[in-house]
Amino acid sequence: MLLPFLRSHPLLHHAARLSSPRTRLILRRDLLPLARSRPIRMAAHSGSGSGASSPAPAPPAAVVQKSKIKFCPACGSPTKLAIPDGDEKMRAVCSSCGGVHYENPKMVVGCLVEHDNKVLLCRRKIEPAYGLWTLPAGYLEVGESAAEGASRETLEEACADVEIISPFAQLDIPLIGQSYIIFRARLKTPNFSPGAESLECALFALDDIPFDSLAFSSIVVTLRMYTEDVRSGNIKYHYCIINKRLGASPSDLRSFDIDNHIAV
Amino acid sequence: MLLPFLRSHPLLHHAARLSSPRTRLILRRDLLPLARSRPIRMAAHSGSGSGASSPAPAPPAAVVQKSKIKFCPACGSPTKLAIPDGDEKMRAVCSSCGGVHYENPKMVVGCLVEHDNKVLLCRRKIEPAYGLWTLPAGYLEVGESAAEGASRETLEEACADVEIISPFAQLDIPLIGQSYIIFRARLKTPNFSPGAESLECALFALDDIPFDSLAFSSIVVTLRMYTEDVRSGNIKYHYCIINKRLGASPSDLRSFDIDNHIAV
Repeated sequence: MLLPFLRSHPLLHHAARLSSPRTRLILRRDLLPLARSRPIRMAAHSGSGSGASSPAPAPPAAVVQKSKIKFCPACGSPTKLAIPDGDEKMRAVCSSCGGVHYENPKMVVGCLVEHDNKVLLCRRKIEPAYGLWTLPAGYLEVGESAAEGASRETLEEACADVEIISPFAQLDIPLIGQSYIIFRARLKTPNFSPGAESLECALFALDDIPFDSLAFSSIVVTLRMYTEDVRSGNIKYHYCIINKRLGASPSDLRSFDIDNHIAV
Repeated sequence: MLLPFLRSHPLLHHAARLSSPRTRLILRRDLLPLARSRPIRMAAHSGSGSGASSPAPAPPAAVVQKSKIKFCPACGSPTKLAIPDGDEKMRAVCSSCGGVHYENPKMVVGCLVEHDNKVLLCRRKIEPAYGLWTLPAGYLEVGESAAEGASRETLEEACADVEIISPFAQLDIPLIGQSYIIFRARLKTPNFSPGAESLECALFALDDIPFDSLAFSSIVVTLRMYTEDVRSGNIKYHYCIINKRLGASPSDLRSFDIDNHIAV
């Protein structure tokens, strides 16, 4: 159901294109992104992809028009942009061996760790968003499942050994080619401490979550949805798209629209 | 709840490592993979990644020990395998510019299109699995959301204009670095026809799904879960891991375990 006071809110100006009778926009006023009074700088994306460092937001990508694949990873020859047979998009094609090299979105996996009605957050010791709070999360590795990757990141960033409870959300960020997969988890033992990438780790009651000092839009949205669910007594699974609002500054973390939010 | 007759079934021999009181293994006998009497050949993975062609299963990947990134995509110099500072895994590192090049899992997005109590399947006109039935699905592109990608693939493979209803499942296949994201969808108009990659498209009643002629393990699992849900009158969201069973032949499509199945 679309709440009356939300009908004209900028959050909804893209209005769920995929909406249906089963689409439930559960965002409430207190779920909306915070006012833009406190812009948070988003550093440029590293362009790499995986490993110990956590995901970094990126500037708008013109996809293959600005392909990062300048040379063929298989033979080292220069690539050129071309539309391969049977394809519809420009790709990086090797000028020598003819190999076609695609660029695909990356999965970021993380845990929303619950303990004593609190959630575990980490304060970042690395850029981007140094000093700001986040859920433990990072790029999924080849050879591991999303649940394993989320547990690994939680161990790396918060030295916390967790057990996955359930999937909680998928949040796509098409502009930067990322999709966040967040799981609810619980501590196997009540122990945690900052890992190499964290300044500190702490449990926060829902009323104390530092929404003014969160690192990424995906974390803001996840924690707003979670807070709403817990308060309503009904924790759901969420899918949504985070789209930067038209005309917003690239450095403005909080100017985004939530599109196609479906909670099941 | 773990059904008694499943306790010793080979499907469960990895037993949910992440299991918890909220983990529900809902697989029933009729949800189990079919007997191995009809092995289906899985062709080797193309190693590319995206675009018009649909996902191809791959042989086991020794991750970076067999990195496909032999030359630096940024400068064309040869790469070497090394563990970068602050990392724990071997990566392809450029011998000249020092760039670190990661390999990440790819997202495959698709639709389970419902119409008149039937589901829409496509018979593949391309390898791998030529002639076998699948859900419309393919690699997610940079710049689109999972829901948009799933709709696009359905338009490409079945010429069907669909509206997303809800997320239905995430199925990770760590061995080949793929994660399937499947949405339930409905036809906007009752029209469909085979796209360039399909021999034919058809609506199947649940009792008529050609389980003996499906293209991929992910499609077998998705359709088994969906059939079970519809019959029970409770369609859920599913997360699971598809792990090839130890000792199974690489060409055996049906020898896999379902691990960490959580339905919410």
